[in-house]
Amino acid sequence: MFHHSSKLQYTVKVDTPDPQFAKLLQQAIGGIEGEIRVAMQYFFQAMGARGDSRIRDLLISTATEELSHIEFLGHAVALNLEGAPVTAQEEAAKDPVVNAILGGANPRHLLSSGLSAMPVNSNGVPFDMSHIYATGNIGADMLANATAEAGGRVLASRLYNWTSDSGMKDMLSFLIARDTYHQQQWLAVIEELGGMAAALPIPNSTPEDHEAMKHSYYYLNTLLDKKAPEGRWSSGPSLDGRAEFHVVDQPAPEGQEPDLGKARPNSGAQTEQI
Amino acid sequence: MFHHSSKLQYTVKVDTPDPQFAKLLQQAIGGIEGEIRVAMQYFFQAMGARGDSRIRDLLISTATEELSHIEFLGHAVALNLEGAPVTAQEEAAKDPVVNAILGGANPRHLLSSGLSAMPVNSNGVPFDMSHIYATGNIGADMLANATAEAGGRVLASRLYNWTSDSGMKDMLSFLIARDTYHQQQWLAVIEELGGMAAALPIPNSTPEDHEAMKHSYYYLNTLLDKKAPEGRWSSGPSLDGRAEFHVVDQPAPEGQEPDLGKARPNSGAQTEQI
Amino acid sequence: MFHHSSKLQYTVKVDTPDPQFAKLLQQAIGGIEGEIRVAMQYFFQAMGARGDSRIRDLLISTATEELSHIEFLGHAVALNLEGAPVTAQEEAAKDPVVNAILGGANPRHLLSSGLSAMPVNSNGVPFDMSHIYATGNIGADMLANATAEAGGRVLASRLYNWTSDSGMKDMLSFLIARDTYHQQQWLAVIEELGGMAAALPIPNSTPEDHEAMKHSYYYLNTLLDKKAPEGRWSSGPSLDGRAEFHVVDQPAPEGQEPDLGKARPNSGAQTEQI
Amino acid sequence: MFHHSSKLQYTVKVDTPDPQFAKLLQQAIGGIEGEIRVAMQYFFQAMGARGDSRIRDLLISTATEELSHIEFLGHAVALNLEGAPVTAQEEAAKDPVVNAILGGANPRHLLSSGLSAMPVNSNGVPFDMSHIYATGNIGADMLANATAEAGGRVLASRLYNWTSDSGMKDMLSFLIARDTYHQQQWLAVIEELGGMAAALPIPNSTPEDHEAMKHSYYYLNTLLDKKAPEGRWSSGPSLDGRAEFHVVDQPAPEGQEPDLGKARPNSGAQTEQI
Amino acid sequence: MFHHSSKLQYTVKVDTPDPQFAKLLQQAIGGIEGEIRVAMQYFFQAMGARGDSRIRDLLISTATEELSHIEFLGHAVALNLEGAPVTAQEEAAKDPVVNAILGGANPRHLLSSGLSAMPVNSNGVPFDMSHIYATGNIGADMLANATAEAGGRVLASRLYNWTSDSGMKDMLSFLIARDTYHQQQWLAVIEELGGMAAALPIPNSTPEDHEAMKHSYYYLNTLLDKKAPEGRWSSGPSLDGRAEFHVVDQPAPEGQEPDLGKARPNSGAQTEQI
Amino acid sequence: MFHHSSKLQYTVKVDTPDPQFAKLLQQAIGGIEGEIRVAMQYFFQAMGARGDSRIRDLLISTATEELSHIEFLGHAVALNLEGAPVTAQEEAAKDPVVNAILGGANPRHLLSSGLSAMPVNSNGVPFDMSHIYATGNIGADMLANATAEAGGRVLASRLYNWTSDSGMKDMLSFLIARDTYHQQQWLAVIEELGGMAAALPIPNSTPEDHEAMKHSYYYLNTLLDKKAPEGRWSSGPSLDGRAEFHVVDQPAPEGQEPDLGKARPNSGAQTEQI
Repeated sequence: MFHHSSKLQYTVKVDTPDPQFAKLLQQAIGGIEGEIRVAMQYFFQAMGARGDSRIRDLLISTATEELSHIEFLGHAVALNLEGAPVTAQEEAAKDPVVNAILGGANPRHLLSSGLSAMPVNSNGVPFDMSHIYATGNIGADMLANATAEAGGRVLASRLYNWTSDSGMKDMLSFLIARDTYHQQQWLAVIEELGGMAAALPIPNSTPEDHEAMKHSYYYLNTLLDKKAPEGRWSSGPSLDGRAEFHVVDQPAPEGQEPDLGKARPNSGAQTEQI
Repeated sequence: MFHHSSKLQYTVKVDTPDPQFAKLLQQAIGGIEGEIRVAMQYFFQAMGARGDSRIRDLLISTATEELSHIEFLGHAVALNLEGAPVTAQEEAAKDPVVNAILGGANPRHLLSSGLSAMPVNSNGVPFDMSHIYATGNIGADMLANATAEAGGRVLASRLYNWTSDSGMKDMLSFLIARDTYHQQQWLAVIEELGGMAAALPIPNSTPEDHEAMKHSYYYLNTLLDKKAPEGRWSSGPSLDGRAEFHVVDQPAPEGQEPDLGKARPNSGAQTEQI
Repeated sequence: MFHHSSKLQYTVKVDTPDPQFAKLLQQAIGGIEGEIRVAMQYFFQAMGARGDSRIRDLLISTATEELSHIEFLGHAVALNLEGAPVTAQEEAAKDPVVNAILGGANPRHLLSSGLSAMPVNSNGVPFDMSHIYATGNIGADMLANATAEAGGRVLASRLYNWTSDSGMKDMLSFLIARDTYHQQQWLAVIEELGGMAAALPIPNSTPEDHEAMKHSYYYLNTLLDKKAPEGRWSSGPSLDGRAEFHVVDQPAPEGQEPDLGKARPNSGAQTEQI
Repeated sequence: MFHHSSKLQYTVKVDTPDPQFAKLLQQAIGGIEGEIRVAMQYFFQAMGARGDSRIRDLLISTATEELSHIEFLGHAVALNLEGAPVTAQEEAAKDPVVNAILGGANPRHLLSSGLSAMPVNSNGVPFDMSHIYATGNIGADMLANATAEAGGRVLASRLYNWTSDSGMKDMLSFLIARDTYHQQQWLAVIEELGGMAAALPIPNSTPEDHEAMKHSYYYLNTLLDKKAPEGRWSSGPSLDGRAEFHVVDQPAPEGQEPDLGKARPNSGAQTEQI
Repeated sequence: MFHHSSKLQYTVKVDTPDPQFAKLLQQAIGGIEGEIRVAMQYFFQAMGARGDSRIRDLLISTATEELSHIEFLGHAVALNLEGAPVTAQEEAAKDPVVNAILGGANPRHLLSSGLSAMPVNSNGVPFDMSHIYATGNIGADMLANATAEAGGRVLASRLYNWTSDSGMKDMLSFLIARDTYHQQQWLAVIEELGGMAAALPIPNSTPEDHEAMKHSYYYLNTLLDKKAPEGRWSSGPSLDGRAEFHVVDQPAPEGQEPDLGKARPNSGAQTEQI
Repeated sequence: MFHHSSKLQYTVKVDTPDPQFAKLLQQAIGGIEGEIRVAMQYFFQAMGARGDSRIRDLLISTATEELSHIEFLGHAVALNLEGAPVTAQEEAAKDPVVNAILGGANPRHLLSSGLSAMPVNSNGVPFDMSHIYATGNIGADMLANATAEAGGRVLASRLYNWTSDSGMKDMLSFLIARDTYHQQQWLAVIEELGGMAAALPIPNSTPEDHEAMKHSYYYLNTLLDKKAPEGRWSSGPSLDGRAEFHVVDQPAPEGQEPDLGKARPNSGAQTEQI
C-alpha cells in the first residue's frame, strides 16, 4: 500500500522560467528514458516477482522512489512554464519567449494542460505502457532495469548539458546521482545471485537439449565484403563458460526456398493465385 | 546495402499445422521480444554508431541476421495456418481446429492477411517503432541489446515448452541458440571496451561535478515498515569502484511543498482558481 | 443514414493566414478535446443506446452536428495554410512566415497533406479511437459527454485568447457557444432522468449487496503528514442520499503481504527463482 | 514524496484460479476504466493544480490510493494464473483450463509476463497515457474524474456479475464501494465551489463577449425526418441560469461552400490540379 | 454540413445472434479495411481538395455514404451480441455460446461497451487516424482509395464466406456490391483525368530535372542467387510511355561506406567513443 | 536470407548540415510515406505470397532494395545533424542553427538518439506496423504498393523542393527516380496478370451470387442540394466490363430505424434503461 508526504523528495528551483526547457524536460517524465517508465516497470516486476523476496522489496521500494521523481520533475515543468504568454495581446507576446511557445515549446502546454506537466515525451507523444518490461525472469528484468537507468542517465546528462539554469542543473545532478546508483543496484542483484557468468544464458534454466548448441557460440558475419571484426566476441571462452567463441564468415542459407503454393478457393485471393 | 538469397537461413518444417500456435509465434515476430525489434534496433544503432568501427560492423551484420529470422518465422506462421478453415460450410468446420480459429487463433490471420504472418504480437497488437532503443551511447545500447536477447530467449524457451511439434521445436532450438550467442556478443563488447566496471556509470563521460555524488551510492528504502533488504547492493565497494554502497532507510523529503498559486487570467481555468 | 449539404455549417473567414495557428487549430480537430472525438463518441453511444429512445435521437443528431464542426475547422486549417512556402527558393522563404513552417508549424502540413487539415492534434499525433467513451450506461456516458464538451470549451477559449485574427475569433466564438449548450444538454439528460442524486452511484442498478458499503462513504487520506482537507466531501449527507460522508485519516493496510512463492519449472524463470 | 508499506490495501483471495478471469481483470488495471488511468490522472492534475490547495491534497491523496488498487489487482491477476499450464506435456494440458490459455486467456500472460499482471487491457492492448485528462480547469477535471469513476464502477459491477469466485467477489465489492465514494468526492468538489450552476459553462471565466451567445442555448436537431425530442434540454431555464433552452429544427447551413481553388505549383499535386 | 435520417441505409437482420461473429464484424468497422477509415479518408481528402470541384463533391458525398455503413454495421454488431451472457449464474452460461464470450468473443463487448459496437478491429485494437491517407495529390489519393476499397471487399468476402447467417450474408452482399462500385469510382477519376499513363509517375508535375532518370526504369534485382523474374515490368515500354523497362541484376553499391567518426564531447556518449 | 555489403546503395553528401532538414527527412524514413513502410510491406507480402512465384521474387527483392534506402537516408539524417549544439555554453549556441534545435528541429535528435536517425516521422511519432498492408490478395496488394510509391514520390518531391542543399537534392533525385519505377513495377504486375479490367472487382474470385449486383454500379449522391457530378464514373461501361455505370441521386434509406429496446438486468446499465 502506498502513502504520501506533502513535500517533494528534492528541492526544485527554477531561476529563469523557460517554456522550451519545459518541453525538453518532458522527455524525463514521459519519454522511454523517463520516470513513468521506471516507476511502472519496477512496480509490475514487483507484482510478478517470484523467488528471493528481497528482490521484490527492492523493486517495490525503488518503484516508490521513482514515483517521487515524476512528482518533482512535474513541478519543474510547471515552474518553467510560469509566465508563458496565453494571449496574443499580452505584452509578453512581443518577447522572444512568446515566439518560443509556438517555435520551440509544446503547444499543448498552452492548449491542453494549462501550463503544467503532461505524461508525454519531448515530441508530445504520450507514454505507452508497452514499454514496461517485466518478464518474470529475474535476469532479463535486471538487465532491462540497468538498461533503463543507463538511458535515463544519458538523458539527464544531456539535459544538464543543455540548460544553463542553476536550479535545473542542481535538480538534474540529483537525478544523475540516483541513476548512477540504480544502474549498479540492478547489476548488483545479478552479482548477489552468482554473477553474470552464472546468469547466462538467460534463462539459465533452459535445458541444454532445448538448444541447438552448435549454433550457440559463433558470430555470424553476414557482410559480403568484409571479414568478421575481431574482439572479445570472436574468440576465447564464452562469457557463460560453456564453450569457445568462434566466427562463421559470410554464411550460406541452411533452409529451403519458401513456397506456399496456390491460394485456396474462398480465401479472398485473386483468381490468378488459386 | 542489402542483398538476399532465396533460401531461408534455417529449415522450417511444421509437422501438424496449428493456427493457435501461429498466433503464439507472432510474439516472436512482432512482440517487443521479437525479431522485428532486434533487427531494427541493431540497424538504427549501426546508423548512429560513432567510435570503434568494429562495433558498427557487428551491429549491421547482426541486424542482417535478424532480418533472416523474421523471414523464417514468417514462413513458420504461414505453414501453421495451412488448412485453417475459411468458410463455415467446410468439412473442417466441424473439427476442433475450426473452433480454434475463433477461440484461440488470431481472427486477422483469416480476415486480414490471407493466412500468413503479420507484424503484430500474439494479441494482434502491431509492433511500434518506439521500441527501437538507440541512444548513441555504446554502453546503454549494449545493455539494451543484451536485454532484448534475454527477453527473446525467454520467449523462445516458453514457445519451445508449449509446442509438441517436432519441426517447431527444432526451429526454436536454433533461435534459442542464436539468442544464447547474441546475449554474450553484446556483453562481450563491454568486455572489449574495458569491462563493466569501467563502463559504469553510463555514460562514463559525465564529469563528476555534474553529479550530486553524495546521492550516488545509497539504496533508498522507501518502505515504512521494513528494514532495507541486505545484499551486494547495500554494502561493499560500488560496482564502478568509486565508493562504498550504503543504505538510507525510510527517508524524509528534502524538498519543498509544491504550490503553484493561483491560475492566471485568460488561462482557461475556472474563476474560482484565479 | 447520413446526408450532406454543400455549404459549411458556419462561415469561415481567415483574415491573415498563419501556418502556426493552423497547427494549433489541429488540436480542435484531432485532439482528445476535439471534434472527431465528440462526433464519434456520440455516434457510438447512439449505436449502443438502450432505453429511452429520445436519448438515442439526441446522440445521433448531435454526432451529426459535430461532423459539421470537423468540416468547417478543416477548412479553417487549409485557409491558414494559404501562402505557406513550399520551396526554399520562394520569395516568401525570406519572410518570418517561412521560418514558422519549420519553427512553429507542423512540417507534415507541408510534406504530407498538401497544405490542408489532418486528423492529428497540435503535436501531430494522430487521433486514436480508444478515446471514444461509450459504456452502455447512460449515466456514465452523459458525464463523459459533459466532460468532453468542457474540455472542448476550455480549448476553444484558449485558441480564442491566442489568435488576433478576427475571422478566427468569430468562428471560435461560435464553437464556444455550441460547447456551452452541449455541456448543459448532456447534464440535462441526467436531470430528465431524475437528477444527479438519483443517478448516483453509477450504475444505480448495482445491488447494494454487491458493494462493501462500509467503504462507500469515507475520504481516505493517504497523506502521512497532513490531516484530511475538509469540505463538502468530508462530512454531511452523501450526494446520493444514502449515508453520511466521513474521513479515514492515514489508513493502515488491511490486506496481506503478497508472496507468490517460487517460480515453476519450465516457466522461463532463472534457476535461482525456481 | 511517496512511501510504501508492505501489505496490500485490501485482502486478495482467489478460491479457484482462473486464467480467463485473469484476462478480464486486466481491464481494471490497464483499461481506460482502470486503475492506472485514475492514479495517473489524479497525479497529473495534482501537479498542475492552481487555486484552493485543499483540492491539490485531495488529488494527490486519492492518486496514492489508486496506486494501491493497482497493487492488489495485480496480485489478483497473478493468483488467477496460478497453475496455468506452461508446457503442452503437463497433465494439466488435458484439462479444460489448459485450452483456456489459448482460447479465452491472454497468451502473453504465458509468453511475456511469466504468469503475472501486465499494464494492458483485456484485449492485451497496452494502456497509453493520452487518457490522462488534466486540463488545468478544475471544473473540467472534476467532471473527468467523476466520469472515470463512473466507468470504473460500471466495469467493477460487470466483473462482479461475471465471476462466481467468492474471493474475487469480495475484492470487487471493495472496489465498487470505493468507486461509489470517489464519484461523489469529485462532484462534491463542484458543490464546495458553489455548485454545478455556478460552474457552468466550463470554463466559467470565459468572458461573454468571447461567445456568440445567440448560439449558446438551442438544441440543434439535424434529423431530417423527425422533430426534436423534447425534454429538460429543449425548454425551460438553462442549467447555468443565463437563458432559456430552445430548439432549432432541421437547420440550414449558415456558411459558404468551401473552395480552395487550384493547387500551387511545386506543391506536389498532379498537373491537372494546378 | 451533415444531416441524418433515422433509418439505416440498408436493412440489418440477424437470424442467430453470434458474439463470435460480432467480434469478427468489428474488423469492418474499426479495422484498417473498415468503414471508419474510408469515411474519414474521403472526408479529409475532400477538405483538402484542390482543382476540379467535381472530385471534391465525389469525395464528400462518398464519405457521407461510408458514415451510413458504419451505422448499419454497428447495429449488426449489437444484434449479434443480443443474448450474450452477462453473469456466470445465467442459464445461458451453460451453453456453448457462453464459452464463446471468453473464448472467441471480444471481452470488451461485455465489459466496456455494454454489448454494442466499438471503434476497434477484430483484435480489439482501436482504429487510429494515422491511416487516413490524404496527400493533396489526386493521383496518389485515388490509388489510396481504390486500395482501401479493394481491401474492404476482400474483407467483406471473407466475412461472407465465414458466416452462415442469412441476414448477415444479405448485408455483406450489399457491402461487397458497394465496394465493387467504389473501387471503380476512384479509378474512373483517373480515367476522367486522362488515364493512368498520363497520371504516371505520380506526381506528374515533378519536373524531369528533379529526377535522376537513368535510375527511373529498371528493375533492381537484389537476389544473389537468381536472375530477375521476367514480365511486363522487365522489358517493353514503361507504363508512363517515357522509356523502356530494363533490368539491373545483382547490383553493387554506388555509395560510400558510412563513417560518422568519433562522438563529440558532451554528447552523452561513452568516453571510448569520443 | 539477407546479406549486406558495407557501402551504401547511393552516395550521400550533405553540403550544409541542417538539423531542421534532418527532422523533415525523418518523414522519408519513419513516415507512412517512408522507407520502413515499403520495406516491411513488401517483405510481409512476400512471406504470404501464393500463386505465381515471380511475384514473390519481385516482392522480396524490392523489400531488400528498400532496406538499403532506409540505410542511406539514415546516414543523411546523421550528416545533417553534424555540428548541432549539445550544450548551451557552446559558441554555436549563439548561431541561428542553435535556435533551430529547439525551434524547428526534433529535440529527441539531441536528447534520445545522440544526433542520428530514428524510426519516427517528422513529428517525432514512431512508425507503427499497422501500416503494413498485406492482404494475401495480389490485386489489393499491388494497388497498395503503387499507392505507397505514389505517396513516397510526392514526399520526395516536396523534400526536393524544400531543400537548397545540392547533395540532398542529388540523393532525393535518386529516390524520386526509384519511386517512378516502383509505381510502375507494381502496376505492371497487374498488366502481366491480364490488366486492370480483368483484376476488377478485387477480389475477382468472389462469386457473383455473393454480391447484391443491383447495387454494384451506381454512384450514390448523398448531397441534398446538388446533382451528382458527371464523369467517367457516372455513365458508360463499368471498368470491369460487367455493367453500365449510373447514378442514384439523393437516396432514401432502405433499412429500418434501429431500436435495441431496453437494457438487460445485470448488464451495468442505469436502472432507467432497464
